[in-house]
Amino acid sequence: MDFSIRASTLEDCKDIARMILELAEYEKVLDQVKVTQKDLEQDGFIKNPFFHGIVAEVPEQHRTKEGHAKVGYALYFYTYSSWKGRALYMEDLYVMPEFRGKGIGKALMSKVAQLGLAAGCTQLNFAVLDWNKPSLDFYLSQGCFDVTADMGYHCMRCEGAALEQLAQGDT
Amino acid sequence: MDFSIRASTLEDCKDIARMILELAEYEKVLDQVKVTQKDLEQDGFIKNPFFHGIVAEVPEQHRTKEGHAKVGYALYFYTYSSWKGRALYMEDLYVMPEFRGKGIGKALMSKVAQLGLAAGCTQLNFAVLDWNKPSLDFYLSQGCFDVTADMGYHCMRCEGAALEQLAQGDT
Repeated sequence: MDFSIRASTLEDCKDIARMILELAEYEKVLDQVKVTQKDLEQDGFIKNPFFHGIVAEVPEQHRTKEGHAKVGYALYFYTYSSWKGRALYMEDLYVMPEFRGKGIGKALMSKVAQLGLAAGCTQLNFAVLDWNKPSLDFYLSQGCFDVTADMGYHCMRCEGAALEQLAQGDT
Repeated sequence: MDFSIRASTLEDCKDIARMILELAEYEKVLDQVKVTQKDLEQDGFIKNPFFHGIVAEVPEQHRTKEGHAKVGYALYFYTYSSWKGRALYMEDLYVMPEFRGKGIGKALMSKVAQLGLAAGCTQLNFAVLDWNKPSLDFYLSQGCFDVTADMGYHCMRCEGAALEQLAQGDT
């Protein structure tokens, strides 16, 4: 199946917001999603954007019955490793279920890698859920490694009341 | 002990590079560090910097015997959650051993949280080594949670030859 990969524009935010919800549904965390189309428009297309996106698009004849031509996306942003320097983080990689197995996910990830290398990045980091075996196997087959399993890194987070309290300090 | 926390400048890169090596030595990965003072100067102080830094400084009389007044630092950058929107990632949080237990680490982390909230971020993410019990306990005591243990997120990475190959694709 023909498809094209290109940088996302403001006009893609509606479809990206839709697919973020589809991905969250797959991950069984639909209630966690607060990000809206408007947030994406505001945060991704300002002078110092908080993220960059790419979308996978299929031609007219392959559209879904609902009329969707944008069938996959990846969100990424630049990060920094204090050991290795410039790096990239892939926040999401998603392909709609009926379009899987056609190389779209791999093409999206390949594009992210290309963009990262072009910007001088030497690492591509991302997270995967341990129960998501198909994704984990795909990533491992692409030469990625599991930093948590191999080096013991745990992802940590501070949010909500704890973040507010941390910011207030008590010194 | 008196200390001050402030945003890092180009002049701090020498000390930050020194402390990055100290931290890597503590984590037993000194051979992994490729980042130099020059890299930090180039990547952190351009128009769209790859990271931001803050440093902890002590007054003249508390300097180390080697003359170091900058005794701790944190590096952070803005990221994005496709569920929660604007977020922050703390790459490093470090205080020189002889200055620990004085609230400097907490003050640095508090400052990172303040800066994040001021920029509209709702999450502060970071990673911790599972064998680094003192750090893990400190973070948990500050209301952080272990996303790997609680939600099953594993950190993944692609680098070196695998990243080059991914970028080339084979479609």
